[in-house]
Amino acid sequence: MRILLCNDDGIDAAGLAALAAEIKKIAEVTVVAPEREHSAVGHAITLSDPLRVNEYHKNGEFFGWAVSGTPADCVKIAICALLDRKPDLVISGINQGSNTGINTIYSGTVSAATEGRINDIPSFAISLTSYTYKEFGPAARFAARFAPQYLALDLPKGVFFNINIPALPEAEIKGVKFTRQGQANYIEIFHRRFDPKGRVYFWMDGERTAEEDDFNIDERAVKAGYISVTPIHYDLTHYATLERLSSQLNLLS
Amino acid sequence: MRILLCNDDGIDAAGLAALAAEIKKIAEVTVVAPEREHSAVGHAITLSDPLRVNEYHKNGEFFGWAVSGTPADCVKIAICALLDRKPDLVISGINQGSNTGINTIYSGTVSAATEGRINDIPSFAISLTSYTYKEFGPAARFAARFAPQYLALDLPKGVFFNINIPALPEAEIKGVKFTRQGQANYIEIFHRRFDPKGRVYFWMDGERTAEEDDFNIDERAVKAGYISVTPIHYDLTHYATLERLSSQLNLLS
Repeated sequence: MRILLCNDDGIDAAGLAALAAEIKKIAEVTVVAPEREHSAVGHAITLSDPLRVNEYHKNGEFFGWAVSGTPADCVKIAICALLDRKPDLVISGINQGSNTGINTIYSGTVSAATEGRINDIPSFAISLTSYTYKEFGPAARFAARFAPQYLALDLPKGVFFNINIPALPEAEIKGVKFTRQGQANYIEIFHRRFDPKGRVYFWMDGERTAEEDDFNIDERAVKAGYISVTPIHYDLTHYATLERLSSQLNLLS
Repeated sequence: MRILLCNDDGIDAAGLAALAAEIKKIAEVTVVAPEREHSAVGHAITLSDPLRVNEYHKNGEFFGWAVSGTPADCVKIAICALLDRKPDLVISGINQGSNTGINTIYSGTVSAATEGRINDIPSFAISLTSYTYKEFGPAARFAARFAPQYLALDLPKGVFFNINIPALPEAEIKGVKFTRQGQANYIEIFHRRFDPKGRVYFWMDGERTAEEDDFNIDERAVKAGYISVTPIHYDLTHYATLERLSSQLNLLS
């Protein structure tokens, strides 16, 4: 089994190192990751600049390829230029910080998994739901357990997984829930400030509104101590609306 | 009616100017757009840098606000800091180049409309499906006709539209089709080159694989001369898989 690892926190991130150490026990691993952090980059690809790829060493050993691009760029260039054959699985993470609810669509971590799946490779994104908790072991071990089980599933084209791990010691994690993406919005605030030259600038800040009280929602499952596994896809079509509108052909005549 | 206009080609783009000129005939318009082009930026938001907002003048008149961020940033800051009340509609475009099929998920144009819809505002993205054809009139007039019809629809939470206009004279456009997002992938190639110092770099290039022969697919409808209107949403959950997996609770025990 050959597994491609990527992330959006950058190739030197602790979450990626923990994931690589664990996945190397079950597979041949190639790491291709951004040379610097790309948080909230969404599904960006680099069209107008060339990409550079450099070997990245860690403790005197080759660790992987550092790319001057986004997480999606990394997966594209790995598949098209760096690897001699397609990997069996793409894992993106372990992200420091949750990628639940509406954050899913902003997430660079998820975008790398999306890119894998677009290329017909089973893929999942995995995040540790805290910006400060540094114990990546439970998440890495879950990824290693999940990988072969996922490959045994026969999923429809374009479907993949977004996984979030609660920031808890392994013994306190209650289990796994298959969930849907929460829809709670953020209440956003822009702080208006003045720079030393007296010019206005804005800092974005915000707080998520309360999610529905349903443990089948990603954010809620994690808060209750469960690992959240959300099957997602990249076909944005809203089929119910399409069906309804297709019967109203006079609408736009 | 108050309409917020945004784009990802930048505030000085001809497509945005054509849209603004047409929409001003039917509504009070505010333009908030990136100060520079952001193509293929996906749903990026700027978390680690402050945003700057400057007045942008055109032909000696105030045209709108130029923001040092992404299309999604523009919509966020417009709603939270620049406008005194929510707009009735967000229109993003007119993009130069198609946003059909898999491109939908990379599109900055679509991401601005997504951001509007996340904030519970009816929103649509509109693109002219050519990188070179400069006649934005038919697209702008369609946007102005579509806006009031769209507002009369009662759509589910989170549903909005991605519109693509064929690059044809108005008389040659055959009509409107409600479509689904195509799923054809790109065949990507990375050109490997050497810079003047002998260092390797890569340019991404690619070609879309043929789309299924079905005129209810966005790309196909446009190629056949129809305006493509795709209802989309930002809930990425694949419900059929969720339902199937939820009945296999032993999978991850």
